[in-house]
Amino acid sequence: MEYEKAYDIIFFHEKARGEAFLKEIEGKKPLFICVIGSTETAKIPGISAAGKYPELTDYTPPADVELLLLGFCRCMQGVPVTPEGIPTPALITMSALKLADIPALVVNGGVKVKPHVPFLDLGGKPGGDIRTGKAVENVEEILSRAKIAGENLSKTADYLVIGESIPGGTTTALGVMLAMGIDAKGKVSSSMPNNPHELKIKTVEEGLKASKITPGSLANDPIKAISLIGDPMIPAFAGLILGAAYNVPVLVAGGTQMGAVLAVVKALDKDALRNVAVGTTRWIITDGTADLRGIVSQIAAVPILAVDLNFARSRFEGLKAYEEGAVKEGVGAGGAAISAMAKSKGSISKSALLEEIEKNYERLFSPKR
Amino acid sequence: MEYEKAYDIIFFHEKARGEAFLKEIEGKKPLFICVIGSTETAKIPGISAAGKYPELTDYTPPADVELLLLGFCRCMQGVPVTPEGIPTPALITMSALKLADIPALVVNGGVKVKPHVPFLDLGGKPGGDIRTGKAVENVEEILSRAKIAGENLSKTADYLVIGESIPGGTTTALGVMLAMGIDAKGKVSSSMPNNPHELKIKTVEEGLKASKITPGSLANDPIKAISLIGDPMIPAFAGLILGAAYNVPVLVAGGTQMGAVLAVVKALDKDALRNVAVGTTRWIITDGTADLRGIVSQIAAVPILAVDLNFARSRFEGLKAYEEGAVKEGVGAGGAAISAMAKSKGSISKSALLEEIEKNYERLFSPKR
Repeated sequence: MEYEKAYDIIFFHEKARGEAFLKEIEGKKPLFICVIGSTETAKIPGISAAGKYPELTDYTPPADVELLLLGFCRCMQGVPVTPEGIPTPALITMSALKLADIPALVVNGGVKVKPHVPFLDLGGKPGGDIRTGKAVENVEEILSRAKIAGENLSKTADYLVIGESIPGGTTTALGVMLAMGIDAKGKVSSSMPNNPHELKIKTVEEGLKASKITPGSLANDPIKAISLIGDPMIPAFAGLILGAAYNVPVLVAGGTQMGAVLAVVKALDKDALRNVAVGTTRWIITDGTADLRGIVSQIAAVPILAVDLNFARSRFEGLKAYEEGAVKEGVGAGGAAISAMAKSKGSISKSALLEEIEKNYERLFSPKR
Repeated sequence: MEYEKAYDIIFFHEKARGEAFLKEIEGKKPLFICVIGSTETAKIPGISAAGKYPELTDYTPPADVELLLLGFCRCMQGVPVTPEGIPTPALITMSALKLADIPALVVNGGVKVKPHVPFLDLGGKPGGDIRTGKAVENVEEILSRAKIAGENLSKTADYLVIGESIPGGTTTALGVMLAMGIDAKGKVSSSMPNNPHELKIKTVEEGLKASKITPGSLANDPIKAISLIGDPMIPAFAGLILGAAYNVPVLVAGGTQMGAVLAVVKALDKDALRNVAVGTTRWIITDGTADLRGIVSQIAAVPILAVDLNFARSRFEGLKAYEEGAVKEGVGAGGAAISAMAKSKGSISKSALLEEIEKNYERLFSPKR
């Protein structure tokens, strides 16, 4: 596929708005925020590849943000990997932030394992299993605290880039989207080459049943949708946007999960999406098993930018696997890469980024560690 | 007393450096950080006036930062007051930040009662009673996490203003200073008009005895000094400075407690104080029962700036009491006022500030709340 590009950034959707957004952030100083959360939903076998095995998914979000802030993980040995050993996209994010000297802040929506680095606490707790219909406690409180954080943080940067790390996040996002009436069945992406759509849909349908709600019935009640069938990352992320987007542009860094975040924001304050763009990776927009554009276009005229990273010629098998559909996105990797390129006005190119990523890969996977 | 001034800011100590510092921050955009902590030391009767009675001191730090971020308190009714009903200096800080549109972030060094607003967690726990010789757990970890936060936050602002809220803080600061060989006996300030020096010294001496250390013996071991006889605010505050001060100026906003913070920073990295100034209130520098200059000058050539607030003609008795020696400083009040004046290049004057403080006082103390 060929797309129009600026630097190594593809304008995938709402091109004119995307170009305007990129122009606005060009050369400007961002703050990168990573929202973390964990759920019992992620432990359903086959749902998430964000961890070597299901129980380890609790360690992935804290390990990801430790990698961002420290350059290595503290709560686990090595770095988070998929069951096939493919490394976390935090490796991309970390490399981009480092090259472009972008500050990072962690926001905790609700995690079971706390990171050994500073994190902004919102009083949130880890999420349950959506099949029980009890997914997230105190959604309104997380959202309102995140909004306060977003308001204050928006005054510290020219714009915000917000990413997330929450295993199983596309399934809980699917739950919120279906509850809110967004046709996202078969459209969410996956960190696995073979997207387990049936398992995700079955899980969400069990959740809808346990919650005694029908698809679309919570279109105007995002708080309830998250409480019943979402995850703790979503209200934290949405609150940050609600607090920040009237002051500064917000690059929402993620894949199809961002549909749930955008839908929640729109339902609470539709004008808040005017200054928002989605930043993701080429792996997401070329994912034949998912449809990010199909999701976003149902919600609002939000542009989608995708960074044209290509690991096909990498020295490392663990990175080449990204070209075969492994991982694809997460920890704001695409948005962080876009903001590194935009901040440097293109002097940080995709090849410079790959070089840094490979350097970090080598360091982290060398037998000495 | 008459001092040289710029705007309504007094150059009290190291005048030339103070002028250079003010020039550097003039018109620039700060980030205000409030470090909170609580201790059992604060509950020793007569030690602290940062709460209506000793057990309430646990609620003062969270209530203070709620006031900063929300404009009202959530964890208590009304606002923190002294036993005489004089309101918290957070009222000054909040008014200054609001007038000058300065963003605020809370950093938790270790508190018993968590604020109902977002706060940056460093994994710290509330402090013990220094008379036991067990004051703070995991000092090194708090310090190193705070340093990471300081590094990142220093990239989000032109400079940082860091304040604190920890009841009993001058006593624990006295402990650290004496352990580190700084002659601070009879020199620390108090939130009470009658400074209980004897009680503070007795408390610290019991702590030194329980810790089996002699004054000055920990001059080169600030970690141990804090662990034995300090409080959890100190390592968090010191870590923020260590992480930030090589990147941006840091206005250390507080009274005599700042001696302990500066001494810790100096012992760990003496060059880190080159870009640091103390920002305080006129009530501190004119406090006949304390000697901020005498403390700071033992540590490093750090300038002291003091905001020339005057509440003598206030409409409210609770504010007039500041002129009789109540409260004096805290929650970064002096530094926040200085940065509001500097950011606005003096258009936020002391009279504009008093007007805003009175407006907020009236709102918070009106019978309707």
